[in-house]
Amino acid sequence: MQTIAFIGLGHMGGPMAANLLKAGYAVRAFDLSQASLDAIVAAGGTRAASAQDAVAGAQVVISMLPASQHVEGLYLDGKLIESILPGTLVMDCSTIAPESARKVHAVAAARGIPMIDAPVSGGTAGAAAGTLTFIVGGEVANLERARPILEKMGKNIFHAGGAGAGQVAKICNNMLLAIHMIGTSEALSLGVANGLDPKVLSDIMRVSSGGNWSLEKYNPWPGVMENVPASREYEGGFGVDLMLKDLGLAMEAAMASKSATLLGGVARNLYAMHSGRGNGKKDFSSIQQLIEKMP
Amino acid sequence: MQTIAFIGLGHMGGPMAANLLKAGYAVRAFDLSQASLDAIVAAGGTRAASAQDAVAGAQVVISMLPASQHVEGLYLDGKLIESILPGTLVMDCSTIAPESARKVHAVAAARGIPMIDAPVSGGTAGAAAGTLTFIVGGEVANLERARPILEKMGKNIFHAGGAGAGQVAKICNNMLLAIHMIGTSEALSLGVANGLDPKVLSDIMRVSSGGNWSLEKYNPWPGVMENVPASREYEGGFGVDLMLKDLGLAMEAAMASKSATLLGGVARNLYAMHSGRGNGKKDFSSIQQLIEKMP
Amino acid sequence: MQTIAFIGLGHMGGPMAANLLKAGYAVRAFDLSQASLDAIVAAGGTRAASAQDAVAGAQVVISMLPASQHVEGLYLDGKLIESILPGTLVMDCSTIAPESARKVHAVAAARGIPMIDAPVSGGTAGAAAGTLTFIVGGEVANLERARPILEKMGKNIFHAGGAGAGQVAKICNNMLLAIHMIGTSEALSLGVANGLDPKVLSDIMRVSSGGNWSLEKYNPWPGVMENVPASREYEGGFGVDLMLKDLGLAMEAAMASKSATLLGGVARNLYAMHSGRGNGKKDFSSIQQLIEKMP
Amino acid sequence: MQTIAFIGLGHMGGPMAANLLKAGYAVRAFDLSQASLDAIVAAGGTRAASAQDAVAGAQVVISMLPASQHVEGLYLDGKLIESILPGTLVMDCSTIAPESARKVHAVAAARGIPMIDAPVSGGTAGAAAGTLTFIVGGEVANLERARPILEKMGKNIFHAGGAGAGQVAKICNNMLLAIHMIGTSEALSLGVANGLDPKVLSDIMRVSSGGNWSLEKYNPWPGVMENVPASREYEGGFGVDLMLKDLGLAMEAAMASKSATLLGGVARNLYAMHSGRGNGKKDFSSIQQLIEKMP
Repeated sequence: MQTIAFIGLGHMGGPMAANLLKAGYAVRAFDLSQASLDAIVAAGGTRAASAQDAVAGAQVVISMLPASQHVEGLYLDGKLIESILPGTLVMDCSTIAPESARKVHAVAAARGIPMIDAPVSGGTAGAAAGTLTFIVGGEVANLERARPILEKMGKNIFHAGGAGAGQVAKICNNMLLAIHMIGTSEALSLGVANGLDPKVLSDIMRVSSGGNWSLEKYNPWPGVMENVPASREYEGGFGVDLMLKDLGLAMEAAMASKSATLLGGVARNLYAMHSGRGNGKKDFSSIQQLIEKMP
Repeated sequence: MQTIAFIGLGHMGGPMAANLLKAGYAVRAFDLSQASLDAIVAAGGTRAASAQDAVAGAQVVISMLPASQHVEGLYLDGKLIESILPGTLVMDCSTIAPESARKVHAVAAARGIPMIDAPVSGGTAGAAAGTLTFIVGGEVANLERARPILEKMGKNIFHAGGAGAGQVAKICNNMLLAIHMIGTSEALSLGVANGLDPKVLSDIMRVSSGGNWSLEKYNPWPGVMENVPASREYEGGFGVDLMLKDLGLAMEAAMASKSATLLGGVARNLYAMHSGRGNGKKDFSSIQQLIEKMP
Repeated sequence: MQTIAFIGLGHMGGPMAANLLKAGYAVRAFDLSQASLDAIVAAGGTRAASAQDAVAGAQVVISMLPASQHVEGLYLDGKLIESILPGTLVMDCSTIAPESARKVHAVAAARGIPMIDAPVSGGTAGAAAGTLTFIVGGEVANLERARPILEKMGKNIFHAGGAGAGQVAKICNNMLLAIHMIGTSEALSLGVANGLDPKVLSDIMRVSSGGNWSLEKYNPWPGVMENVPASREYEGGFGVDLMLKDLGLAMEAAMASKSATLLGGVARNLYAMHSGRGNGKKDFSSIQQLIEKMP
Repeated sequence: MQTIAFIGLGHMGGPMAANLLKAGYAVRAFDLSQASLDAIVAAGGTRAASAQDAVAGAQVVISMLPASQHVEGLYLDGKLIESILPGTLVMDCSTIAPESARKVHAVAAARGIPMIDAPVSGGTAGAAAGTLTFIVGGEVANLERARPILEKMGKNIFHAGGAGAGQVAKICNNMLLAIHMIGTSEALSLGVANGLDPKVLSDIMRVSSGGNWSLEKYNPWPGVMENVPASREYEGGFGVDLMLKDLGLAMEAAMASKSATLLGGVARNLYAMHSGRGNGKKDFSSIQQLIEKMP
């Protein structure tokens, strides 16, 4: 069985690494948090003293870090890439700027290290359940080599294109998600203010041309749907600040390509306004509270 | 079999009336266009000399008109309501302001005339095929009386609430439709500008959290999906100017209720900009052409 | 000296009528509020029992009412126009929809009654001080006949064009005002969040290409400028709900002409959001509080 | 007289350096373009073989470069800062990200090199005429040392605050400029579509509460004002792509500080849309052509 170096054991990385251990892989883990490391050791992993230590002797390297600067900091500025043997498969599962992903890809390729960018969706619940979605950028051969491992952590695997394409696709998807979540919130507020019942309106729009994932799986109006954050005071789920980060990546990508993203831009600014009011840790469907009239 | 007065035989009303004839109803039709009247007479209908003439002796009155002023003009200013016998069922299938619908409801109710507002979605294709969706406002008993007739023209019938609620629900739905159509266009433009294939990106987002009706049924990028307006130069379908009209109704409703519809407002203005460039008759998915860079 | 019928003695109309009395005009006043009527009688005016009573024997009629429906209600539905003698000059100083203004103009013209629409800016302080600005629509000859009277209530008089043009110009101006007020708020928030002093930044932008009336006369950041609402907790001045009403008129005008007003639309929706949080009575520069991060 | 190293002789830098020569300074110039260097040598300057060569023996270093990456590339990656003697005054007049400016400030400070960031406004005409505005970030003592030199190139000098503050203030100002330019365009389009004369409406709004620099100095409607780009088919002036760049800097700053810039975001996206239609080189007031209905 292969040895996997796993760097970054946060809310997502921790349960992902645990699923690899359950599947029988040897995992050499590193994180700055000793508590996170303790947890993975308790689950059967090996504690590495540093990222360099983690990759020594590993056939696969997985990283799951918060942002572009951490990924560039690890592989490039921190020169981890120089400690990785040619032929070792590198999978970065962080959500970062496509440009950053491409930089790391290029340096890896120059050293004969196959790499994929494989950002995920599905949240901490999906990480724990092993039902994440991976959106992969990189060569098909590298994705195929990664697939058996990805399948231990997730159930949907998409190939978006070459280096960085996984990041681009995830960013586009999440911008669209923010847009239809806000649009759904606006439609519900408008309907309720004009006398409709939010559940009745949701049921109509869900199966009509207004239909979208927010209505189907994640209704933002409290009480319309059970077992969604809106029905537990917007706790859990995908946080406002994480959506704000992803919308920031979308704006950066739009600026790089001089693309027009009118609704994406308004969405980003509404999430910034909402976060600035102390809602950064709430679920992103709480944007309903910004749209809906309340003192 | 009941006699139905049918007023307004345009692109939608014509085929709707034809389906009622096919189902065996007697239809007394009126329209200002003789050509439209000729067509319905050829299909077995009776030509009425005026709206008043049409309703004489009918058990049911259906109207399908372009805008609020026509409906108010017909029933109230034109005093048609005074020619309709108490107990006659009135169904207005036009898409109009909820306030206008409620005015007509109130006058009808005062005269003992049961009424529903029953705006449709599904376009001219749905009207011809008898597969429209009706979103109904009014009392349940009146909807149940209308149901056998509606089922000859459509396949989905929703009860949105009391008088005017059908209009509110349709307006909310179409605002949300415009938002996710533009959002989808922005996501596709952003992805393609950053190197992705539009079909691959569409396939990923469709089954991910970005999923929505525009991606599922009506992809706006030319060539991604067969048999949609985007793949025939945006011909047919639901026109830009019709969407602009519905977004105008949404803005009016938002002003009446002092609701905040940020994305809805931007959507309305982008469709106005697009229409102003000579695209009013194109399908509404052609908003992709406004978003996408092109000289 | 002429007798002037003055209808509508609210926060604006009351002091305007008082200035006419000071200038020696005979004023026959009507308002639904007895307290308002008492005040104008105390200032030397005559109490009329109704609008019809007020116009009897007057050479000039001035109305100052809240919204389109009141003006149409008064002159058209209430048939006041039938009580006004041909040749009597009618000045409507309300801010209403251009379409409503044109309707009243048309009916007046048909009866040989010269009319101008003359909406004002300058707020209650300007009304009291007699320093209002009048933006006038109608024939030049009618404006010239009105000028001596307008000059008793204001100091700037603009001729915008024909019937309704005063309303159009005021609506355009106030939409632009809302846009640069919000823009100024955004620039100040952005600068302060990035380390600048709001007064220093205001001073720089005021004399640079960012310069605008909000920076010059009405800085929205508390403490930057003395004697403005921002420095007294946004009390007094021009209320959020009044701006919201004017932006609603702008949106209606944009819909009538199919114009694209992207920033105007966002401005309208931000004011709706701000009003919906209980700020309707605050000065409109309090939009700074919506833009600025605060819990 | 002091020797000034001048790096970057483009449309702005060239005439700025020429003004220093006219004022009697010795200028050691460097640019990648030989033609630009030839021009400055013809004006009395000295040709340097490299940036390092230019700063050798200079008491002052001025840089005027297109973007953040060029300034960081020059001083930091290109290590020019190591060739500059302690005590030499460095003025970077480029418009760049505040964060980039602060990075260079910090490295300079660590080596005992006083520095100011001094982005300009006033365009190429102002650069030629020596009437630029400088918005300066850095210590007051350094600004005072720079002042005699800045006064040879401009007439207004503002101190915005510490390191990077000049950039922040310029970015805020230009975002506000874009907003009131678009707002003015929207107001003019709305007014004209509703029957007003653009010059009459401009005159009214200019002296009313809608007043702003765009109306005062730079009316975007063709023919309203002489000697502005709108009256010469939007040629000359401040280009769309330059405004798009500055709005990109504003968005980056907003993302760094999690600020909400709703109108700024829409402005950025409208300029992107306008640029994407082949208008990148036109004057930025040509946004009127995007707002105004035209096929």
